[in-house]
Amino acid sequence: MLSLLCGAVVATATTPARAQTPAVHHGGPPGVVHDVTGSPTPPFIPARRETTSSGQIISKTHHITLVAQRRPDGSLTYNGTIPGPTIEIYEGDEVELTLVNQLDVDVSVHVHGVHYKADSDGTRHTRSFAPPGGKYVYRWIAAPGTAGYWHYHDHVIGPGMDGVRGIEQGLYGALIVRKLGDPLPDKTFILVMQKVWFNNNVYPHTPLLEAKLGERVEFIVITHGARFHTFHLHGHRWREHGTTRIIDTFTQNAGESTAFQVTAGEGVGPGDWMYHCHVHDHIEDGMLGFFRVRP
Amino acid sequence: MLSLLCGAVVATATTPARAQTPAVHHGGPPGVVHDVTGSPTPPFIPARRETTSSGQIISKTHHITLVAQRRPDGSLTYNGTIPGPTIEIYEGDEVELTLVNQLDVDVSVHVHGVHYKADSDGTRHTRSFAPPGGKYVYRWIAAPGTAGYWHYHDHVIGPGMDGVRGIEQGLYGALIVRKLGDPLPDKTFILVMQKVWFNNNVYPHTPLLEAKLGERVEFIVITHGARFHTFHLHGHRWREHGTTRIIDTFTQNAGESTAFQVTAGEGVGPGDWMYHCHVHDHIEDGMLGFFRVRP
Amino acid sequence: MLSLLCGAVVATATTPARAQTPAVHHGGPPGVVHDVTGSPTPPFIPARRETTSSGQIISKTHHITLVAQRRPDGSLTYNGTIPGPTIEIYEGDEVELTLVNQLDVDVSVHVHGVHYKADSDGTRHTRSFAPPGGKYVYRWIAAPGTAGYWHYHDHVIGPGMDGVRGIEQGLYGALIVRKLGDPLPDKTFILVMQKVWFNNNVYPHTPLLEAKLGERVEFIVITHGARFHTFHLHGHRWREHGTTRIIDTFTQNAGESTAFQVTAGEGVGPGDWMYHCHVHDHIEDGMLGFFRVRP
Repeated sequence: MLSLLCGAVVATATTPARAQTPAVHHGGPPGVVHDVTGSPTPPFIPARRETTSSGQIISKTHHITLVAQRRPDGSLTYNGTIPGPTIEIYEGDEVELTLVNQLDVDVSVHVHGVHYKADSDGTRHTRSFAPPGGKYVYRWIAAPGTAGYWHYHDHVIGPGMDGVRGIEQGLYGALIVRKLGDPLPDKTFILVMQKVWFNNNVYPHTPLLEAKLGERVEFIVITHGARFHTFHLHGHRWREHGTTRIIDTFTQNAGESTAFQVTAGEGVGPGDWMYHCHVHDHIEDGMLGFFRVRP
Repeated sequence: MLSLLCGAVVATATTPARAQTPAVHHGGPPGVVHDVTGSPTPPFIPARRETTSSGQIISKTHHITLVAQRRPDGSLTYNGTIPGPTIEIYEGDEVELTLVNQLDVDVSVHVHGVHYKADSDGTRHTRSFAPPGGKYVYRWIAAPGTAGYWHYHDHVIGPGMDGVRGIEQGLYGALIVRKLGDPLPDKTFILVMQKVWFNNNVYPHTPLLEAKLGERVEFIVITHGARFHTFHLHGHRWREHGTTRIIDTFTQNAGESTAFQVTAGEGVGPGDWMYHCHVHDHIEDGMLGFFRVRP
Repeated sequence: MLSLLCGAVVATATTPARAQTPAVHHGGPPGVVHDVTGSPTPPFIPARRETTSSGQIISKTHHITLVAQRRPDGSLTYNGTIPGPTIEIYEGDEVELTLVNQLDVDVSVHVHGVHYKADSDGTRHTRSFAPPGGKYVYRWIAAPGTAGYWHYHDHVIGPGMDGVRGIEQGLYGALIVRKLGDPLPDKTFILVMQKVWFNNNVYPHTPLLEAKLGERVEFIVITHGARFHTFHLHGHRWREHGTTRIIDTFTQNAGESTAFQVTAGEGVGPGDWMYHCHVHDHIEDGMLGFFRVRP
């Protein structure tokens, strides 16, 4: 499966072909984020920024292929994982995203945050989707002002004019738009809340997120579905995105995305720190997992 | 109906009598915001600010009449539209609002954000409501510090001591309190989320919002009811009110109001850009509409 | 009951033994916040800060005992009240909290916001709970950067690995971490939203919050449970925590906590100002109360 995924990432003229890394390390050797039961952490398509001699980022066009596939368990994926690949780019970059549809229904990619023309909207009324066995090419522009933690998802599968059933079955992923000077983490984790799931699983099948004491860890949290959630991480706290407030729990509902960075175990030490939705019936139904901070 | 509504807006000494404008233009000729099926955009009662020779705003008292009416389809309205008139004032202004009750039940106006004495609270325990066939006069003061996007609604219709059934049937509207220096939009749209509705309608009866490429457009979003929502607009993004975070989706629940301004089609061009609640079962039930950006 | 509670607060070397005050006054004589039907306002364990001659706060360790008890009505409490005691400390302080379990099930204290080692997590997998008839000692550190409005609650009662039934029955309270220079209120009120309750009661059994015109009043709002809420206070508005936005209504869901300070009746005068959840079915079910501003 991985070799197929690797092949799906097509090199640009300025970017050497590279495999999608199954875990996320910035500036260090690649590692693997283990899951208790093996559900994989999504591949990461890193920006691998190049700078000029004066420190400016060289903008580039990322050529990325997403293959919409059905897994044996009936779930739907981009490139075989849930979430799909995490795409990291910089303000000024562009993405040419080729969607290959191996499903038997229309499928699309709708993205949040960045610029795109109406024909890259990923919706039915703009006819920007791929038919079964077909392809569709989307173009995204990370214009200045679009830095942030965004996401992409199917927007056509399901009844009604705007499908959301593809999302429910797994067709979603994260998009990071960085800008020069953003603090870079040692690791990035993606947690998507939907129903009583993290990444379409309940405990103990939720991701086991691992870091060493003192590593800078970035949590990207995205929500889909029809239920409201509050994300809580034990033993850590952070500045709310865009405000001066320190929080350790936040509300997030369908279509929203945010992120925070923490120093693993800072002031609290190693341990298995629980992350969970704080909504009572959700946690009772297994909407929890662990952030394992190793000494 | 409109002539009745016009009559309901009583001129002040310093403000010439004016018709309620069925669409919202600032600094340009009045226009009309068309709805796919004709449900009207609420009338706009503009601040029409006057300034001194040194640029200071001349505070004024706005005399406004709202007539609580039942429409043939059973819905309840202030002045015949859902939402009721959008009221725009400036910090320093006051509003003397006369509520005329043409219903067969008590009705009130409760306002958010601005100052008012307890006898302008619009609640049952303060007896600040109009009986059937009667009137009630409310006084609001937009004291310094109250600039923002607020709203008003009935607070007495329904079972229990605090009615919310009037809101459900249409008794709500927007209040804008501006302050000197606020960027003024070319157009203002009001979208109220309740149940799976925008402005008490599902698609295709939701408002079709129209603007020309490059116009500065203000979206005021208000929520009522018993369901949670996330507002999403395709192809555009904005700074979250009061923070430095760029978003294109936000959670909003009953009683909350906010707004954002975008440049229509900026960086993305013309098109029919969807707005919708991102909650899965809501969008499946038709909680969506279009922002048509013309070339 | 109160004498028992008083005994439960053990003095530190630097803090004289003191009774928990049944109402909250800063810098003035103690008062009582009356409830319409007598449900008590939670006791307040004040920081009683001491400063050096140069104005620096002298950090201290607070020794606090919480006794988990079942009340005759079947509800569960820390020290006999719902919410449990409000704990106020300063950045730099530590808390040694002894939990005494008088229940017939395991019980714990999990805290938000501050630092603590894994063995003070209050969870089952860390075995940081008190068995029936037993005790457990937690250590919290209010490290720099943890100032804010936090809360504590049981994390082990109930089915599944992480109990939330103790919270539902009343095992929760507020934690305030102040920092030097924070504006101190004349009074602090705690309102916890859960189901259609404030502090596990519906109107008219919700707290009647009383203040004199012009007093600086702090509202701490916390949410638990499985329903979403929007807190609204009539006649007042405030700057949203951490932002520049002025609001009078906000969304809050399980596990979140925030606070705001208002000047009682500022610009609006005395009156019975309603506070309520703005979600329609919640207010219809009695999720409301009053903030009585006396002349």
